[in-house]
Amino acid sequence: MTAPIDFYFDFSSPYGYFASTRIDEIAQKYGRYVAWHPILLGVVFKTTGSSPLPSIPLKGEYCWRDFERTAEFHHIDYKRPTHFPLPTQHAARAVLWLQNHHGADVATAFAKAVYRALFVDDLNIAEPAELAKLAEPLGVDPIAMNEGATSYQIKDQLKAEIEVAMAKGVFGSPFVIIDGEPFWGFDRFEQVEQHLKSRRQTAQTPLRAVGGNDITKEKKPA
Amino acid sequence: MTAPIDFYFDFSSPYGYFASTRIDEIAQKYGRYVAWHPILLGVVFKTTGSSPLPSIPLKGEYCWRDFERTAEFHHIDYKRPTHFPLPTQHAARAVLWLQNHHGADVATAFAKAVYRALFVDDLNIAEPAELAKLAEPLGVDPIAMNEGATSYQIKDQLKAEIEVAMAKGVFGSPFVIIDGEPFWGFDRFEQVEQHLKSRRQTAQTPLRAVGGNDITKEKKPA
Repeated sequence: MTAPIDFYFDFSSPYGYFASTRIDEIAQKYGRYVAWHPILLGVVFKTTGSSPLPSIPLKGEYCWRDFERTAEFHHIDYKRPTHFPLPTQHAARAVLWLQNHHGADVATAFAKAVYRALFVDDLNIAEPAELAKLAEPLGVDPIAMNEGATSYQIKDQLKAEIEVAMAKGVFGSPFVIIDGEPFWGFDRFEQVEQHLKSRRQTAQTPLRAVGGNDITKEKKPA
Repeated sequence: MTAPIDFYFDFSSPYGYFASTRIDEIAQKYGRYVAWHPILLGVVFKTTGSSPLPSIPLKGEYCWRDFERTAEFHHIDYKRPTHFPLPTQHAARAVLWLQNHHGADVATAFAKAVYRALFVDDLNIAEPAELAKLAEPLGVDPIAMNEGATSYQIKDQLKAEIEVAMAKGVFGSPFVIIDGEPFWGFDRFEQVEQHLKSRRQTAQTPLRAVGGNDITKEKKPA
């Protein structure tokens, strides 16, 4: 087994949403698992001195056009959200609570549903009631989730997770780290894929070197 | 003839350099000419509140890694410059002077040479003496160029050109505008190419519609 790929995202990030539709698929192609890490850009931006893209003069107008065009270019469903900007702490904390109580796969399925709710179905994902509707089909008790997401334990955990992310160099969304190599932005996903490819080739080489044989062949039934 | 593509760049922008190695080639493929516009990001950043990438906490460290990796990914010559950051006004003004006195093609050849000098040969392009060496092989009087680049006329022209660029929505480097459609960043060059492709198809349709014939065929000698 190889170490998981780390995928950092803020639910208010359109490029993070685009990335959320592709990251698992790419990783699986190279036999890797993805660890999903919700972060809050508001906290990160205090360190980098950045602002949300849509709020920056000139850049703000451009970016809405770019979101639309980039979605079309990559054939990703996208509808400009009307609830925007919006607070994403509750959704991020719900993901952590799900990871703790239902495991990573349920939490990831929920994260994908939240992104889609915001950037395709134009729902207000800042509302716990909307998140409850997304959790139910996953077999999750929505009341327990929404209560858990407001607990001190989860609030502290999210803060600490963001500290860890920043200590690792994370400063934006989406952000991917593969065995220490950082990639910022959905527009680096071609490089992410190339990197995974080259890592796989490197990983296979030592196996083949043992005794001059291909170890994978030895595992086949004779 | 179709209108030129507008290409905006600051000489201190590594992604601008990457773009400078590709923009003419892409445009030519679709029968388009490129108008090169030197700008100063320092002036633009006063409006957007941005800072040079390498100076931003966390982002700064990442970006040097990304410059290197992106150059390798696209097979572009690149060496991290030691003279960096550095003032680029003089080089930008020299390009404008060349456009005025030697025409756009000589100015573009000079701009490409300046970018290469900074990001491949590690020369200090803030030095007029270095720019002189780049101008000479192009048949340009380097003394006239360096004097012209410090004239009030050229200083005013550069200021005005940057004002025009910002009025059109330009806020970064590289920045490409194709018939009103803006593209920011070297990582949008795939979309630039797709846009040029779709524009060419649209442009050809009305020609074919006239009298039900293909006009281009009528131009062939019978």
